[in-house]
Amino acid sequence: MIIVYTGNGKGKTSSAFGVALRARGYNKKVHIIQFGKTKNTGEYKAAKKLGIDIKTFGRKEWIDCNNPKQEHIRLAQEAVKYAVEVINKKPFLVILDEINIALHCKLISKQEVLNLIKLANNKHVHLILTGRYAKPYVKREADLVTEMKEVKHPFRKGIPAVRGLDW
Amino acid sequence: MIIVYTGNGKGKTSSAFGVALRARGYNKKVHIIQFGKTKNTGEYKAAKKLGIDIKTFGRKEWIDCNNPKQEHIRLAQEAVKYAVEVINKKPFLVILDEINIALHCKLISKQEVLNLIKLANNKHVHLILTGRYAKPYVKREADLVTEMKEVKHPFRKGIPAVRGLDW
Repeated sequence: MIIVYTGNGKGKTSSAFGVALRARGYNKKVHIIQFGKTKNTGEYKAAKKLGIDIKTFGRKEWIDCNNPKQEHIRLAQEAVKYAVEVINKKPFLVILDEINIALHCKLISKQEVLNLIKLANNKHVHLILTGRYAKPYVKREADLVTEMKEVKHPFRKGIPAVRGLDW
Repeated sequence: MIIVYTGNGKGKTSSAFGVALRARGYNKKVHIIQFGKTKNTGEYKAAKKLGIDIKTFGRKEWIDCNNPKQEHIRLAQEAVKYAVEVINKKPFLVILDEINIALHCKLISKQEVLNLIKLANNKHVHLILTGRYAKPYVKREADLVTEMKEVKHPFRKGIPAVRGLDW
C-alpha cells in the first residue's frame, strides 16, 4: 500500500507516526526516514522507545527551497540511498517523512521517488510519503491520498509551536 | 490548546496518536479516551507500551448512528464522566478519540462536550478531539482545526483494511 499525506494543514507527519505506532502494536518492523529533520524531537525519542528504526537526514536549519544548501542536497541523496537499502530488507512499513518537500525543492529527482515507490510495490512494503506539495505523479502512484486541509491554525493567532505537540 | 481532527479522509486518529507519541518522547502524561472502540487494536497495544493511559468505551459493533444501542449511549456517557476525572488531574494531553461521532450520533450532548473543552482550557490541558462531522460550535472553540480530505481511498478500489495500518 502506497500512502500519501499532504496538504497545508497540520497532521501529516503525526499521521504517519500514528500508523507506525499501530504497526508496532503488532510488533511489525517499521523504518522511518526523515528528510530535512534532526534527532532533536519528541517523535524521534518516542519512536526509538517503540523499537522503530528511525534515521534523520537534516540540519538544524530547515530546507530553504529557493536556495537549498549543498549539504541539504547531499543529505537528501543519502536518504534516498538509505531508503533503497531499507526497502530491500522488506520490512512491514517504511515512512519517508517530508520526502514531498525534498522533491518539491529539487533535492531529489522525480525518477528517484518513482523508483522508491516501484521498489516498495515489488517488495510488498507499505510506504508512506509525507509533506506538502505532493506531486501529481506521486499521488497517481498512491493507493491512499489524504490532504490535510488547514481550517484553523494556532500560529496564525500568534500561538507558538509547543514542545511535545508540534515536535 | 484545543485541537480538532475531522473530515472524511484517513489520518484523524492516526494524527492524534502521532501527537501522543511525540508527547511521550518528552515523558509527558497522556490520556487517550476512545469512544465506540475496543482494545483489540494495534494502537491500543502500542499506546500501552509507550506508557499512555488509554481506555476504550466501545463494543465490538461500531455505532449505528440511525439506531444507536442503549449500551453505546451508556458507554459514551461513562467516557464523558471519565474524561472530566482525567482532565481534572491536569495531564499534558488528553485525546478524545471519535468524540465527534459520539456527538453527531447524539450519544452525548453539545453541553457535555463544550464543558469538557472549557474544563481543559481552565486546567491548561491540551485536548484533541477526533472524528468526522465535527460540529461548528466545536470547531469554533478550537485553536487548531485540520480537515482530513479524502483524495484517494483504497477501500474504494476494493482493498480491505490492513492490520497494523488501519487499526
